[in-house]
Amino acid sequence: MIALLLAGNCCANTALLPSEAKKITAQEVIERIKQHLGVEWKEPTVDTFKAGDPQTTVTGIAVTMMSTLDVLQRAAAQGQNLIITHEPTFYDHLDNPTELPQGQQDAVLAAKRAFIAEHHLVVWRFHDHQHRMRSDQVELGNVHALGWEKYQDPANQYLFTIPETTVEQLAEELRIKLHAAVPRIAGDRQSKVTRVAFSPGAAGFRREIGALEIPDVQVLIAGETPEWETVEYVTDAHTEGRAKALILLGHIASEQAGMEECAKWLRTFVQDVPIEFLPTADMWAAPVSAKTKH
Amino acid sequence: MIALLLAGNCCANTALLPSEAKKITAQEVIERIKQHLGVEWKEPTVDTFKAGDPQTTVTGIAVTMMSTLDVLQRAAAQGQNLIITHEPTFYDHLDNPTELPQGQQDAVLAAKRAFIAEHHLVVWRFHDHQHRMRSDQVELGNVHALGWEKYQDPANQYLFTIPETTVEQLAEELRIKLHAAVPRIAGDRQSKVTRVAFSPGAAGFRREIGALEIPDVQVLIAGETPEWETVEYVTDAHTEGRAKALILLGHIASEQAGMEECAKWLRTFVQDVPIEFLPTADMWAAPVSAKTKH
Repeated sequence: MIALLLAGNCCANTALLPSEAKKITAQEVIERIKQHLGVEWKEPTVDTFKAGDPQTTVTGIAVTMMSTLDVLQRAAAQGQNLIITHEPTFYDHLDNPTELPQGQQDAVLAAKRAFIAEHHLVVWRFHDHQHRMRSDQVELGNVHALGWEKYQDPANQYLFTIPETTVEQLAEELRIKLHAAVPRIAGDRQSKVTRVAFSPGAAGFRREIGALEIPDVQVLIAGETPEWETVEYVTDAHTEGRAKALILLGHIASEQAGMEECAKWLRTFVQDVPIEFLPTADMWAAPVSAKTKH
Repeated sequence: MIALLLAGNCCANTALLPSEAKKITAQEVIERIKQHLGVEWKEPTVDTFKAGDPQTTVTGIAVTMMSTLDVLQRAAAQGQNLIITHEPTFYDHLDNPTELPQGQQDAVLAAKRAFIAEHHLVVWRFHDHQHRMRSDQVELGNVHALGWEKYQDPANQYLFTIPETTVEQLAEELRIKLHAAVPRIAGDRQSKVTRVAFSPGAAGFRREIGALEIPDVQVLIAGETPEWETVEYVTDAHTEGRAKALILLGHIASEQAGMEECAKWLRTFVQDVPIEFLPTADMWAAPVSAKTKH
């Protein structure tokens, strides 16, 4: 480097010293995401900053399913100050928990906000547009985690034709591959199935029944859904002698692979900082006692 | 009877022939319920007729947690043509499933409606006012099923001080006594608890967090709730080292005892027709195959 300086013009030298490495802000990371989405950015959306200053220089990115305090602690400990999360951070779909009886004074909420502030973390939610990508990135993550590429229906990315199995065996495969602590089955768990719909997360009654109304769909896999809606529907369908069953994996297990997919995708156009997928512990698994936490 | 007739005035004879027994309509049963509630009737409410003609003469009453088609079939087979249910019948909180992609042509819905019409059933929902009774009748049912009368807090019917146990052992007690197929625990399942809140059904974030914010409440029992709301809250509370855990029993198991309580209560002022509590099978239990159904 000294030789080059002595040689004169050196503006073409791109080997910058670490302190001169180009910094990237949280806002700039999100702008790159928008550019690489492949679909138009639409508002209103929940895909916004939830905490922290978007102008913060990013030192590392943690990509996660749900930004629980545990995930935030791990991210902070590893110097990951931008957290990209799929689920809400503050217990409400709009991250605005107005229904908390003690409001912003609620101790649990206040402690979480304080942690974020102390560690200068920035939290951004990637949900609506992640699902809207030409290949729903969450579904894509599930397909890769399950190894179901060859089973996916070319006409509908949420439908699969799998080798015949029973609902019970399918739930076991999902439990293992997607790390679902407590999968639950409604309908006939012994029934044989081959035509499967996978609606990750809590897509809601309209989408879930839309899948179940497809005549050859025999089982719907989802994250969570109200029992007086889709679950009662499947229960009645079973009573009517129809081949319809339901497997609920829990929200995190049904979408988490999509965040691992997201981290891989991000690395293709963000190389300025390290990017890590941080799994959210399944909330139904036996947790490590808070006292013995790392 | 003939002797009395020959004796002259017999208007006081109350031993009526069966065909002359005073008939009661579904509407009249509901009017008696309103009179015996002990609280004012308030509208708007979901406590309305959902199907059938309220002027129907009642031949028997089935009281149930959720009027699944299976429950309706059993009621019809036993001559119970008035079904009093706690949960929706038509997959929607207002029993108006506008989100069904195929609308009223949806095969599952249409078959259920057809069954109700063929058997001239009447379905009425008892939900809002049942909870509003001076003793929330659903909670009362749970207290009786659990044998927790002596543990109940005189100042708050949803709070209990029980002999110290662990969250895991408590979940097991609830599984057995309330017939919950798949109880789930969030937070530390090994933690010792004595102060318990029980919020049956899906009361929602505001009520659930209201219970958890009470400083000495260590565990909340509920039916179901969104994972990005109360469950994430409890998960974070646990990470913060707070003694807060959650047991979700499933909706039916968390309220069904209240319908058994309801049937007993109804019999105290409705003796015109037989009244039976018909349990709804837990939707997460392995069901009997539809082909071998009774």
